Amino acid sequence: MADCMTVKETAGLLREWDGILVLSHASPDGDTLGSASALLRGLTRMGKRVGFACADPVPAKFNYLFEGIPLSEKPPEKIVSVDVADRALLGNNDGLYGGRIDLAIDHHGTHVPFASSRWVDPTAAAAVELIYLLLLELGIRPDKATASCLYTGLTTDTGCFRYRSTTPRTHRIAAELMELGAEAADINRAMFETKSRQLVEAERRVLEEMRFYCENRCAVVQVPRSMLEETGVAESDLDGIASLPRQIEGVLCGVTLKEKEDGQIKASVRTNPPLDASVLCGRFGGGGHKAAAGCSFRKQSLAQAETAVVAECGRYLQELGL
Amino acid sequence: MADCMTVKETAGLLREWDGILVLSHASPDGDTLGSASALLRGLTRMGKRVGFACADPVPAKFNYLFEGIPLSEKPPEKIVSVDVADRALLGNNDGLYGGRIDLAIDHHGTHVPFASSRWVDPTAAAAVELIYLLLLELGIRPDKATASCLYTGLTTDTGCFRYRSTTPRTHRIAAELMELGAEAADINRAMFETKSRQLVEAERRVLEEMRFYCENRCAVVQVPRSMLEETGVAESDLDGIASLPRQIEGVLCGVTLKEKEDGQIKASVRTNPPLDASVLCGRFGGGGHKAAAGCSFRKQSLAQAETAVVAECGRYLQELGL
Repeated sequence: MADCMTVKETAGLLREWDGILVLSHASPDGDTLGSASALLRGLTRMGKRVGFACADPVPAKFNYLFEGIPLSEKPPEKIVSVDVADRALLGNNDGLYGGRIDLAIDHHGTHVPFASSRWVDPTAAAAVELIYLLLLELGIRPDKATASCLYTGLTTDTGCFRYRSTTPRTHRIAAELMELGAEAADINRAMFETKSRQLVEAERRVLEEMRFYCENRCAVVQVPRSMLEETGVAESDLDGIASLPRQIEGVLCGVTLKEKEDGQIKASVRTNPPLDASVLCGRFGGGGHKAAAGCSFRKQSLAQAETAVVAECGRYLQELGL
Repeated sequence: MADCMTVKETAGLLREWDGILVLSHASPDGDTLGSASALLRGLTRMGKRVGFACADPVPAKFNYLFEGIPLSEKPPEKIVSVDVADRALLGNNDGLYGGRIDLAIDHHGTHVPFASSRWVDPTAAAAVELIYLLLLELGIRPDKATASCLYTGLTTDTGCFRYRSTTPRTHRIAAELMELGAEAADINRAMFETKSRQLVEAERRVLEEMRFYCENRCAVVQVPRSMLEETGVAESDLDGIASLPRQIEGVLCGVTLKEKEDGQIKASVRTNPPLDASVLCGRFGGGGHKAAAGCSFRKQSLAQAETAVVAECGRYLQELGL
């Protein structure tokens, strides 16, 4: 395992390579898809053959990211992962590619090395910050479409510049991307200001059923499969629901428990300081960032998962003397 | 009425003056209060005596803006309004000061001149952008508290950099304010990520009762006085509710009708392009920005106001051939 590289070294590798497959993590979000699509556009501009793979389908609202990119289906010569903190997050692609990734570009402080080479910078609020710097290093001025891909990752991974991870650099890159033609307002509208009526109904139900624990410092909501069926909301539209419980005044730990198709329970944990979501999720084998992390429960019901998380949250609060 | 001034000319006036009363508009928001508090801090640093007035109380969540500013109660020598588009928006202070304002600093394209001198720049996403440039022009490097005041105006008036009014300059100023010590993450958390349980319940009720018109392109919610009483939510906490109806997919015009204490109905209108909220509200004697505007209805019930707004929205859509 090589040590962590610089942007110059990373650019040096990519200049040498061709036939590059770019991998996004499973359950793809705006940052992994924005990073992949912007990198693919840059590599294409350099005349390279590129491919793309993700274990899960790209949600429809992100389709514009990949429009017009000529993707090759030929077997790749080199494999690059973007925004992937751990090979397990490749989902079903882990078996196929996880053991032979040539380069990982990531911004997670919790990155578990798996690639032959890696450029990991946890000071970046989003992986697209790194892709932007990389494109500049490669001498590529992002065109309008690429700027929009990069802006998408920047705004979605920072909750529109709201999260603690946002830095002055994040804002300066946003300014530059807007000048390069990124459709910032339209992207923000699509990502944050557009809800289907089904989603509004699902949110209403979730709010109605929210439960409070640990002297109201822990709030939990459940999203059973039946809610998806009854409201008609798409599972990929439900990401925003995870931010609801933490928004309640006084809540330090907001937990959203979703029942997945295979019966597994997925917990999305959002915390306010001094709590660290990645610490709490780490105790259940999960991980993520300080303010946002996740973990899974197998062979447990929603109610059992809720009991387990709440108990651990109580212990964690006690350890911190809160 | 002098022509619109430059930042240099505005700074020149303020250098000459002392005993300066700064006015915010009635129903004060983060921008008018962030502008006033940052300007007051700057003028105090220049050794000037300052005062502050607003027709309505400063909401508790904005108290930090004014902490530590030494405010004088003596009669003012000069009067400056910030973020006030029309003297009528001074509310109950219009009678007292409206006719003798020496300087208006504003960013509204709809500004109706009322002050002896004015610096109006509608390219600014928030009035604090102008106050920031003004402080720099006055040779004042904002301290941490001032940077937080300015950031508060910037983030609240752009919906955290989300609205169409946000420019590259807005992002660059945000970056500089963060470097000057603005508590960006804490401010965003307080402004956007913190809701009382009462507010959550009020939002839930509003969502439940939302009505759709004009082939689902117009969505309307009502906030009767009884909702405030039943949920215990504070009126000043309800500002965010205005953004809910426009968020629904396909909605071009979102209307929130609030019953005020005096029985008057206040409409908050939020539009998506090509609709212009200030055009629609202008037809009822109101005004504002393209995406967000307001107007009032006297001697009408919530239901009557709803009928009037919906009818006008239908006409407006038709005029645009939509």
